[in-house]
Amino acid sequence: MKHVYFFGGDQTEGKKEMKQTLGGKGANLAEMAAIGVPVPAGFTITTETCAEYYDEGKKISEAAKQEIDENVKKLEKFMEMKLGDTQNPLLLSVRSGAAVSMPGMMDTILNLGINDEVAAGIAEKTSNPRFAWDSYRRFIQMFGDVVMGVEHHDFEKILDTAKETKGVQFDTDLSADDLKEVTQKYKELVKEKTGKEFPTEAKEQLLMAVEAVFGSWKNDRANHYRRLNDIRGLKGTAVNVQAMVFGNMGETSGTGVCFSRDPSTGENVFYGEYLMNAQGEDVVAGIRTPQPITQLKEVMPEAYEELVAIYKKLELHYKDMQDMEFTIQDKKLYMLQTRNGKRTAAAAVRMAIEMIDEGLIDEKTAILRVDPASLDQLLHKQLDVVAKEKHQALGKGLPASPGGAVGKIAFNNDSAVKMKEAGDVVILVRNDTSPEDLIGMDAAAGILTAKGGMTSHAAVVARGMGKCCVSGLGEAKISEANKSLELGGEKFTEGDYITLDGSSGEVFSGKIPTTDPELSGNFGKLMELADKHRKLGVRTNAETPRDCQQAVKFGAEGIGLCRTEHMFFEGERIKAVREMIMSEDLEGRKKALAKIKPFQKQDFYELFKIMNGKPITIRLLDPPLHEFLPREEADIKELSTELGVTVEQLKQKIESLHEVNPMLGHRGCRLGVTYPEITEMQSEAIFEAAKEISESGVLGSDSQVTVEVMVPLIGNVEEFKNQKEIIIAVANKVLEGNDNVKYMVGTMIEVPRAALTADLIAKEAEFFSFGTNDLTQMTLGFSRDDVGSFVPEYIEKGILERDPFQALDQTGVGQLVEMAAKKGRATNEKIKLGICGEHGGEPSSVEFCHKVGLNYVSCSPFRVPIARLAAAQAALKEN
Amino acid sequence: MKHVYFFGGDQTEGKKEMKQTLGGKGANLAEMAAIGVPVPAGFTITTETCAEYYDEGKKISEAAKQEIDENVKKLEKFMEMKLGDTQNPLLLSVRSGAAVSMPGMMDTILNLGINDEVAAGIAEKTSNPRFAWDSYRRFIQMFGDVVMGVEHHDFEKILDTAKETKGVQFDTDLSADDLKEVTQKYKELVKEKTGKEFPTEAKEQLLMAVEAVFGSWKNDRANHYRRLNDIRGLKGTAVNVQAMVFGNMGETSGTGVCFSRDPSTGENVFYGEYLMNAQGEDVVAGIRTPQPITQLKEVMPEAYEELVAIYKKLELHYKDMQDMEFTIQDKKLYMLQTRNGKRTAAAAVRMAIEMIDEGLIDEKTAILRVDPASLDQLLHKQLDVVAKEKHQALGKGLPASPGGAVGKIAFNNDSAVKMKEAGDVVILVRNDTSPEDLIGMDAAAGILTAKGGMTSHAAVVARGMGKCCVSGLGEAKISEANKSLELGGEKFTEGDYITLDGSSGEVFSGKIPTTDPELSGNFGKLMELADKHRKLGVRTNAETPRDCQQAVKFGAEGIGLCRTEHMFFEGERIKAVREMIMSEDLEGRKKALAKIKPFQKQDFYELFKIMNGKPITIRLLDPPLHEFLPREEADIKELSTELGVTVEQLKQKIESLHEVNPMLGHRGCRLGVTYPEITEMQSEAIFEAAKEISESGVLGSDSQVTVEVMVPLIGNVEEFKNQKEIIIAVANKVLEGNDNVKYMVGTMIEVPRAALTADLIAKEAEFFSFGTNDLTQMTLGFSRDDVGSFVPEYIEKGILERDPFQALDQTGVGQLVEMAAKKGRATNEKIKLGICGEHGGEPSSVEFCHKVGLNYVSCSPFRVPIARLAAAQAALKEN
Repeated sequence: MKHVYFFGGDQTEGKKEMKQTLGGKGANLAEMAAIGVPVPAGFTITTETCAEYYDEGKKISEAAKQEIDENVKKLEKFMEMKLGDTQNPLLLSVRSGAAVSMPGMMDTILNLGINDEVAAGIAEKTSNPRFAWDSYRRFIQMFGDVVMGVEHHDFEKILDTAKETKGVQFDTDLSADDLKEVTQKYKELVKEKTGKEFPTEAKEQLLMAVEAVFGSWKNDRANHYRRLNDIRGLKGTAVNVQAMVFGNMGETSGTGVCFSRDPSTGENVFYGEYLMNAQGEDVVAGIRTPQPITQLKEVMPEAYEELVAIYKKLELHYKDMQDMEFTIQDKKLYMLQTRNGKRTAAAAVRMAIEMIDEGLIDEKTAILRVDPASLDQLLHKQLDVVAKEKHQALGKGLPASPGGAVGKIAFNNDSAVKMKEAGDVVILVRNDTSPEDLIGMDAAAGILTAKGGMTSHAAVVARGMGKCCVSGLGEAKISEANKSLELGGEKFTEGDYITLDGSSGEVFSGKIPTTDPELSGNFGKLMELADKHRKLGVRTNAETPRDCQQAVKFGAEGIGLCRTEHMFFEGERIKAVREMIMSEDLEGRKKALAKIKPFQKQDFYELFKIMNGKPITIRLLDPPLHEFLPREEADIKELSTELGVTVEQLKQKIESLHEVNPMLGHRGCRLGVTYPEITEMQSEAIFEAAKEISESGVLGSDSQVTVEVMVPLIGNVEEFKNQKEIIIAVANKVLEGNDNVKYMVGTMIEVPRAALTADLIAKEAEFFSFGTNDLTQMTLGFSRDDVGSFVPEYIEKGILERDPFQALDQTGVGQLVEMAAKKGRATNEKIKLGICGEHGGEPSSVEFCHKVGLNYVSCSPFRVPIARLAAAQAALKEN
Repeated sequence: MKHVYFFGGDQTEGKKEMKQTLGGKGANLAEMAAIGVPVPAGFTITTETCAEYYDEGKKISEAAKQEIDENVKKLEKFMEMKLGDTQNPLLLSVRSGAAVSMPGMMDTILNLGINDEVAAGIAEKTSNPRFAWDSYRRFIQMFGDVVMGVEHHDFEKILDTAKETKGVQFDTDLSADDLKEVTQKYKELVKEKTGKEFPTEAKEQLLMAVEAVFGSWKNDRANHYRRLNDIRGLKGTAVNVQAMVFGNMGETSGTGVCFSRDPSTGENVFYGEYLMNAQGEDVVAGIRTPQPITQLKEVMPEAYEELVAIYKKLELHYKDMQDMEFTIQDKKLYMLQTRNGKRTAAAAVRMAIEMIDEGLIDEKTAILRVDPASLDQLLHKQLDVVAKEKHQALGKGLPASPGGAVGKIAFNNDSAVKMKEAGDVVILVRNDTSPEDLIGMDAAAGILTAKGGMTSHAAVVARGMGKCCVSGLGEAKISEANKSLELGGEKFTEGDYITLDGSSGEVFSGKIPTTDPELSGNFGKLMELADKHRKLGVRTNAETPRDCQQAVKFGAEGIGLCRTEHMFFEGERIKAVREMIMSEDLEGRKKALAKIKPFQKQDFYELFKIMNGKPITIRLLDPPLHEFLPREEADIKELSTELGVTVEQLKQKIESLHEVNPMLGHRGCRLGVTYPEITEMQSEAIFEAAKEISESGVLGSDSQVTVEVMVPLIGNVEEFKNQKEIIIAVANKVLEGNDNVKYMVGTMIEVPRAALTADLIAKEAEFFSFGTNDLTQMTLGFSRDDVGSFVPEYIEKGILERDPFQALDQTGVGQLVEMAAKKGRATNEKIKLGICGEHGGEPSSVEFCHKVGLNYVSCSPFRVPIARLAAAQAALKEN
């Protein structure tokens, strides 16, 4: 095993493709050296050496040590300098660098190789004693912190005291003697804190530093970062040992960070900042305010021109926007790092499209370069980034629905509606929400709940509405009765201002400014490209005209899930629904259903009109009936008067409908089987509306309506046959051979047994739509309303990699989806397969759907663009 | 296709092996004819003809009609009589008979072929006008009811009026003229009710009757019966058309039912009852109380001797206890039917064992002959003998089905079902029962009838169901309309308590304590045979010393499921548990757990002692914590005082633990992961108890303790690894190399995802135990506590064949079990596999477990014998 790769001029051994072995930084340093970009020479100790270090019980192998030694000698020869030499000392930087960038997660040591004698030698050689002692004190500080575990803070105190004593503000105002004194105090501090002398031998320093970098690979920060960013399968970190160059050698030296395009907007301009007479960490740490990169042109025109030439060369070479670090040592420019730069979603889209136009990349590359999940940022109002940084969050819940919202707190529907009518922007704050709260959610700009996960009622509905939502904020103490919220030590009552960041889950006190979404022309172009390459269809989960229109605007090709019960809640409807529930016999139920039907029919008519021929999957009534009855004492009283029953009777009914586990109770097709009159009414409303609109001429020339009637919660083919019979009987009766209404009857696959017996069900069903929310609940045994008590800890402890309600659990639930798809196609090769769970808008899940060969995904309107892009990426990755 | 098979002497075409085609009755009639037992000649129309009838839209095919015609001619020739002839008329019986016996489920017509002229002819020929007209009126009544749909009840009214007019009690007291008048009125009734004349043409009568029998195959009663008895895959019913013989030809004629052994006790004695001057349905209907068969010896010694010879011949021929019907026509004996007789469980066991001893059958046959589910009857309660002696019986009827039952009176199906749903034990009280009453009988724990004998509908069905039944208690005055029972001077109404002794026929007022069953020697022998042949192990689900002892007595080879939370509820324990729940921090929880530990340890110690080396699977805490907190206001107050917290705090805690779907919430290993201290405490209690007892000497020489620590609700191998680590750490610490304590760590497979990822889990787990209760809940999406609202209707409508919580859903849940067993063995071939759901004691499920290769089943103590027998049968069926 080769442990070390040298880089520097034509002796360079690595290249950019060797990231897995050299880490991102090391591979790019080698690449730059090889293509003639000036980099300080050095060598990279491989990631495999890091793995070996852990395998051998945290020891650097002898073989590795020997290679390091040889490479030090090679470097000394290359640089014509010598490590630890007092006359011509080689100083080193030691930096970590994994295959995937983990900025700030691991450790760096600069100026390695100095001791008292070397410092004195440098002072003499450079005639710059201040520089020499400044470098030395920086080295002790970094090494003491990173390698020997002395707190950074304790060093800073010594430095601050020195500045105070001298009455100066900046480090640069300290003289060489001041700094010499600081180094003495630093060494005393190290001795005091660790009981050990600060090492003076350069090779010892180097091995200790390498070991510290390896050790940092598994520190808590790094582990946490990897978990958070879903980084897996890496061997370890590489270590880059490089000849030091100095930006702090005086006013002809400096250091900076720059980007080949603006990472915030994506504009094709040179972007960055620099500091004169400083080392790299001064820029990053923000101790002094850096200057915009364009000013360098004035200060050092030659170095600037060289830098411009290099950035252009690098972007062309890497064919992507570069994020670079450079140092100017006494007017000579060195590149310390280059990598593909991080960027905002807006910038990613703009660069992708413009780089195609510039001929830099092809369509495939452009599509793959934008993270689909990041598109969320473009579709919603966001908190102003700069303003947000000035605020401390009160708490952090789950980022249930993206975007930012600022408004006044309301604790119930009534207040929310009233406040909205009074012109206020409202944030609805609840322990959790149920369908009863739809009115309040509709009136609110954002929703905050203490309970519930990423697919709780609040989260799902908010995403559907495109509203910001923070859910599962367990630390929030909410009393709906007292109209109070306690969070982060503050107490809020109705009307108080609060700010939610649904993209991060953070909640702030008061108001933070927001920015509006901008859907640029580039966004549209990217979507067009995505559509060109994707194979999956993309539909939406929507039922209100507003949501459907929004979804069509976002490119939805149909409705994959129209939840008819969402149409049951408003005004007169809920009355009739409740009348039906309270009916003791079939006749009473039929009477009440007859009142609901005209509303349903009108709603369907509107949908058919908006979708104008696009397919619409209408799911029959799904939730348990008790969801339609009131829970609050006052509402119960009111309803009893309305229905002409006693409060007692009403309570008894509510009690009789109570279920221990409503999720697994009398709902879905089980309602349709026990109350066939409901299925009948809904089918009539669907087909009558379809027939009317197809005969009305409003749909244009072909007047086509495409309806897919979907039976929910099937677990057994017999249930499906039972419901299908009713639906088809109604269709035959109503349509009377109207050929413009095309319809199919199919089912959700959301009960594990349905997936297991999909071969039987597919003989009867014309389509399957995977309801992966419920399928996840049942396959994992996770109630999405209750997982807040353990899922966060599961993720923390690494038992779960991701919340299975956000990203499809491919190992478990995915097995059922794949099995059902296979079994379904085996007995009905023409069966249409889709997904309508929340996962339909999550990129990794969309990729999975593509792989198992579904026909389409369906998601909430605001996720349609994400799904389109993710689907395109899935198709392109396959080739 | 041959539609009709003739039987009669050497012209017989069928044989006993042709049940699928000829039905049970037809095949046995043919067999009897062939082996020289006297049966009235006739022919059988095949079950395939019935299927054809339905296939052709309820029409008898022309081919079938022609064959029927030919066979009528053949029969006329054989009998030397002629259908419809006034001089020498052939009368026919038309009886249904499917491949599986469905007593009383389908229809029968006797005396077919009579009209006014024929009746007159018979009167003249037999010089017995009373017989002629009685036969005629019976024919009209049956035909009118069964074929033409006139209510039985309406005919009875006419007959009752006639008896009243004449001032007589019995039908037999009516004269020929009276009966002639009755036939006239009957015909008028038919005309009035149907608008049609009663058919006079014999061939027309025959085809109408055949069609009615075919039609009855799919009537509600028959459908319900098949569903209830899980009878599937039959083609239809056969129709047996047979020359009539008459038991009602006067005092030298009679009819009866008899068994080759006592169907109630199994004793090897001739058993049965008969009525002189009666037709078959008189015995079954229980209108007159029949005489014991032994009395026939006195009345008609020759016929009796012949009957004895025949029953012995038939038993030897069929090698099983025979249930026979016979008719004596003017001293000549005819067998009308023979079949393997239904029997009580006690009788089945006794016969099986005695028949081996007699050399009649082999062990395999004996084992397969006892229905495992029926053993329930032997294991269930009897009236306490001592307590019973202190009570005076109100009356004594026939001991129709053994066992004791105590419950509230219901007079009809509706009440019985409602009361049962309300949680009451129900005694159904009826004058007599008909197949219509099946629903009520199903809901009842015991049945009491005023009419009917030991072979009445009530008696037969109750024995089949293993339910206590007292029949023929003539002195009981029962008004079903007024819902009242008068007996022994007391008056009872709905809801009053009553006690039945089905073994003696006695009925008592109020409640008498019951005692647990005692298992006879034959039972023990059968169990020994079962153990010899079975391959599956049988364990029990138990945790109390009483249950464990009971289970060991029943043959349990270990504990398959010890639910530790059952140990959490008593006295001081629940206090400490609640203290733990209310603790805000780890320290508080540990303090409370330290209080629980000694109790748990002591309990485990006791179990280890009772099981004495047998393996014990201990499941760690499973239910959600809120189950341990009080719900009632008063209890909350009390607890708040006890724990020294405010009612407010306590309520808030209860509120915070509330879950929308507790079944899918924070329970099982999820508790152990978030509160590792609970797993730690339980592990300590287990291993400390195990170590102590193994060192105490109380276990005898080998001092072995075998513990299987079971982690519940695993869905993800990471959860298991997390818990296993804790358990093994405790074991290592506590056991300190004690070799007498053998332990394994394994998991329940009860979450679908666990089954799907069993290959991964098996790499870590040493055993799997299928928790099919929860697995059924999650796979089907059925909350066990909530399915009452739709599962009964599902079964009613045929959507479900059986309650999936009773019999394992092999198509759905079974797929997961099989998959998990396969995947588990694939990565860990030594893995031990068991089942501990309720299904572990249900015969069809046990057979399934055998087939998929589990190592053992575990069930409640009272089901252990059932499981042992079912396991043996599964093994024998395989060979």
